[in-house]
Amino acid sequence: MKNSFFKKKNNIFLKDIFKTLKIKNTKINRKVNDIKELEAASRNDITFFHSIKYLELLKKTKSNLIITNKKLNNFIPKTKKVINVDNVLLAVARITGIFYPKAIDDIFDINVKCIDKKQYPSLNFGKNVLIGNSVKIGKNCNVGHNTIIEKNVRIGDNCNIGSNVIIKNTVIGNNTNVLDGAILGKKGFGFFPGKKSNIRYPHIGAVIIGNNVEIGCNNTIDRGSLSNTIIGDGTFLDNQVHIAHNVKIGKNCIITGQVGFAGSSTIGNRVMIGGQSGISGHISIGDNVQIGGGSGVIKNIPSNSKVMGYPATNIRNFLNKIT
Amino acid sequence: MKNSFFKKKNNIFLKDIFKTLKIKNTKINRKVNDIKELEAASRNDITFFHSIKYLELLKKTKSNLIITNKKLNNFIPKTKKVINVDNVLLAVARITGIFYPKAIDDIFDINVKCIDKKQYPSLNFGKNVLIGNSVKIGKNCNVGHNTIIEKNVRIGDNCNIGSNVIIKNTVIGNNTNVLDGAILGKKGFGFFPGKKSNIRYPHIGAVIIGNNVEIGCNNTIDRGSLSNTIIGDGTFLDNQVHIAHNVKIGKNCIITGQVGFAGSSTIGNRVMIGGQSGISGHISIGDNVQIGGGSGVIKNIPSNSKVMGYPATNIRNFLNKIT
Amino acid sequence: MKNSFFKKKNNIFLKDIFKTLKIKNTKINRKVNDIKELEAASRNDITFFHSIKYLELLKKTKSNLIITNKKLNNFIPKTKKVINVDNVLLAVARITGIFYPKAIDDIFDINVKCIDKKQYPSLNFGKNVLIGNSVKIGKNCNVGHNTIIEKNVRIGDNCNIGSNVIIKNTVIGNNTNVLDGAILGKKGFGFFPGKKSNIRYPHIGAVIIGNNVEIGCNNTIDRGSLSNTIIGDGTFLDNQVHIAHNVKIGKNCIITGQVGFAGSSTIGNRVMIGGQSGISGHISIGDNVQIGGGSGVIKNIPSNSKVMGYPATNIRNFLNKIT
Repeated sequence: MKNSFFKKKNNIFLKDIFKTLKIKNTKINRKVNDIKELEAASRNDITFFHSIKYLELLKKTKSNLIITNKKLNNFIPKTKKVINVDNVLLAVARITGIFYPKAIDDIFDINVKCIDKKQYPSLNFGKNVLIGNSVKIGKNCNVGHNTIIEKNVRIGDNCNIGSNVIIKNTVIGNNTNVLDGAILGKKGFGFFPGKKSNIRYPHIGAVIIGNNVEIGCNNTIDRGSLSNTIIGDGTFLDNQVHIAHNVKIGKNCIITGQVGFAGSSTIGNRVMIGGQSGISGHISIGDNVQIGGGSGVIKNIPSNSKVMGYPATNIRNFLNKIT
Repeated sequence: MKNSFFKKKNNIFLKDIFKTLKIKNTKINRKVNDIKELEAASRNDITFFHSIKYLELLKKTKSNLIITNKKLNNFIPKTKKVINVDNVLLAVARITGIFYPKAIDDIFDINVKCIDKKQYPSLNFGKNVLIGNSVKIGKNCNVGHNTIIEKNVRIGDNCNIGSNVIIKNTVIGNNTNVLDGAILGKKGFGFFPGKKSNIRYPHIGAVIIGNNVEIGCNNTIDRGSLSNTIIGDGTFLDNQVHIAHNVKIGKNCIITGQVGFAGSSTIGNRVMIGGQSGISGHISIGDNVQIGGGSGVIKNIPSNSKVMGYPATNIRNFLNKIT
Repeated sequence: MKNSFFKKKNNIFLKDIFKTLKIKNTKINRKVNDIKELEAASRNDITFFHSIKYLELLKKTKSNLIITNKKLNNFIPKTKKVINVDNVLLAVARITGIFYPKAIDDIFDINVKCIDKKQYPSLNFGKNVLIGNSVKIGKNCNVGHNTIIEKNVRIGDNCNIGSNVIIKNTVIGNNTNVLDGAILGKKGFGFFPGKKSNIRYPHIGAVIIGNNVEIGCNNTIDRGSLSNTIIGDGTFLDNQVHIAHNVKIGKNCIITGQVGFAGSSTIGNRVMIGGQSGISGHISIGDNVQIGGGSGVIKNIPSNSKVMGYPATNIRNFLNKIT
């Protein structure tokens, strides 16, 4: 899928990358197309391998240009060109900054305008609605008061967007509701701690929301860093839910009030999560999982489990402890 | 109390209800006035009995027309007309949708207008304030910038409403403050999970807020489904509190930051709840209860108890566990 | 530091204070300059001593006029003038109300105006931005749509303020971002429970935010009561974080989503706090502390500790309990 939210710089060469990484290398040079994760990278993209967890993806990647560190060097097939760095993710952040210089600052869209009835003749909209360039909104939709929809956002048919909503870097399907005060598509909380100031991680991913979804009041859903944050068809989120960057939630899930997801976790289909539960980062939850309210899930949960507690455990274990 | 927020359709007959429920019955037909809970229903209202928990209320109901299922059929007095269905609450949702067709979609009030000084001559108000039809605001009130007050909302005397607030389907007493960013009166998170898309539950209740109350910043308080969500006199809520549909909170309670209430729980008077605590749905908490911060309350708590923990237990038990 | 947000009444005499406290005393009278905490008070300020915890500060205070209660009376040096009351903090609240009568109601700033390009010629700003009197904004800043910046707020250079933000009683350093929907500087959740209605505590403190800080979406940061709420240089806050009055957070901390801080706690430098953790009031957390996600911290934590759990304990103890 073409990235419609962040404009990629073309004419980036290996020497630009070496310069940014402060690597002295004058032997090779060639044009590099883009920076992508292992599974998404094409032949002329640069990619990266920073953990043994991703070995299977490494074996299949089409990229010929791989950033890694010395410890992981031996895992890279001999046919690939390797760039060794001390901190792989920091190098990825810097290279992403070359391709997508506007993905770091994340300031507001200054080109939004008060909605023009002529441009959206069938839309039912409130007062002070601000719309960016190239925003697409389908048939039979409502957009409430003071709502801001920034450039290139796409919304399907039969959607209700509430009041005081902010939407950027987001694609929304059909029959989906976004309730009052929700904030969708800002950059994630990813950065490298620095002594004086932190180095922000560029976020070039989007938020992709399916059909028949409901996003609750005052939700915050951050866009992905290199991949997207995804909410599947038929999933309903209650109020004050927080979803960090790169989280992927499946279909027909029910996420109750004040639940929080740390970055990069994957949730299956038909998962039910009780109020105020927290899901750690980089874990995987299967299909049909039920998570009791207030749980803290800190490891993978297989499909069809019922868990509760902090840390979350089999629900019978948890309930047995109650005096 | 007359429902001033959702317009009821008149001229609804039993045959309309049978048609919606796909029940073949041509023998009886008569006009039905409204759909109400057991204790609130009058002679010509339809009501429902879906759990043995409500047996005492069933015995006292004035309604002659009761939806239930086959298992519960025997509890219904012989003098009543019974309608058996597979899923009682789903049938209730569908019938409520006949009487109150606008209580499902919950879109923004398109008829709000920029506040007219002539209509509210004594009000102290900010920029871009939007007011719906028939909104009543008492003496000596303040309404902040960008705030939206939708149709039929009533606010008493000496109230301070902050900026960026959204109020709909709500009645507020005297001397009450609603702080910046609070969202009051949207429909609750009640629905029936469907394979393709969820069936939304109509919410025809209101939010009723007493005198001398404070509602914190970015709070979300959902309106009730058939009954109301209630915040009693003198109760103070801190920031980022979430209150689900049908919750009833008593007088002079102190609810600290980020506390969440699941649907339909009842809280007594003078209850103190520490930050980030969660209160499960459909439970009852007595008077003068003190709940320590971070607690997860999953069962009824008798009056004058002090509890803490997840699950919440006697506070001495909890503190004994600390190493 | 002069209080630039709340105008102090001058010409307050001891007799005004006695009258407010309903103390009959006609023997002494003199002008009182201000009300301050023990360490900040000068010779002509009134101060207070309400807990043995503050004995060391009492010994050093420059104030000659100390409010206390009979139990603590013996700790006060003989050279000082003592005023005995039943409830010290309630007396402090009432006296603060004499000096700063506008610090209780905390209504919106009615004098904000649509931003004037001439007044802020180098500022990049969105639609419907409202700015109060004497607001100072540095070079190279961005302010998003619908944002409200109330009177006397000061913002440094190179700052990005998002959309739908509300800022009052706040000073912000350089290179700091405040993301969409954040609410900074409202009064804290401090009051005295009353039978009929609660007595609000005046909040004359500010929010002081350092350089290179990031404040996440929908954060709520309350200003201090007598002292300030402080966020140190280089500290990053994720979305939906709540910070109560008088909290002091050090430098280069990382505070993840939905974390909450109760009032008056002190956090060191380089502290990392995982998502949804809660920090109790009036505790102290050292430098380089790591707090795992979901923790409930209810006592002081020494520097360089790693803790997790509810209540938070050494992280090894916590992980050992996992089945």
